Amino acid sequence: MSAIDTDLRETGSQFMPKFGPDGLLTGVVVDAQTREILMVAHLDQEALTATRETGLAHFHSRSRGTLWCKGKTSGNVLRVQEIRVDCDQDALVIVAQPAGPACHTGARSCFYRKLDTNGRLAPIDD
Amino acid sequence: MSAIDTDLRETGSQFMPKFGPDGLLTGVVVDAQTREILMVAHLDQEALTATRETGLAHFHSRSRGTLWCKGKTSGNVLRVQEIRVDCDQDALVIVAQPAGPACHTGARSCFYRKLDTNGRLAPIDD
Repeated sequence: MSAIDTDLRETGSQFMPKFGPDGLLTGVVVDAQTREILMVAHLDQEALTATRETGLAHFHSRSRGTLWCKGKTSGNVLRVQEIRVDCDQDALVIVAQPAGPACHTGARSCFYRKLDTNGRLAPIDD
Repeated sequence: MSAIDTDLRETGSQFMPKFGPDGLLTGVVVDAQTREILMVAHLDQEALTATRETGLAHFHSRSRGTLWCKGKTSGNVLRVQEIRVDCDQDALVIVAQPAGPACHTGARSCFYRKLDTNGRLAPIDD
């Protein structure tokens, strides 16, 4: 990639998503009210288009290789309020209103554990 | 992966990071004070070990293929306060105290633009 492309991506107003070698962007979903990070998932061009067209967060399932509308089965959809883009345009922050728990385990957020000093996982209180 | 492995990863207290086919975890860095998302980068086993041993966020540069201590040149290191792990252990939230702007452009956060309704990028005010 040329320096001109890099500069355009970083400073310009043109949306030029930089999909990785696997065809994916990283998506970080944040709760619009609490700003808590709810989940991390991946978007290909199809998921990005579906998200922008429907206003509901869509992802690309790396394990199943298919488009995935988050919450389509459970009802726990993520209504997108804003999409933020990082400097090199390979990651998105999706600010969304969750209709229910974001995690398939039933937790509000997928990040419900932290590494403790002994290298074990402990529940997060807050 | 068996159902038992999946269950252990999701509910257990054992840290079993699930590196992707590219050998990487996704890392989301959050400001320990403001909870603002500062950047997204990737960690291989080497970067994860270096981060845990030094208390400074390290990543694997996908473009250069090398270990990268964030801020080693600029001084804008990220002092790790807590590492949070998601349900399937393929993504980390790194709660950190930034010594300066996290973005190489000089911005506080790499997420300094949002998609507007016309599909263009606009600066974020907050």
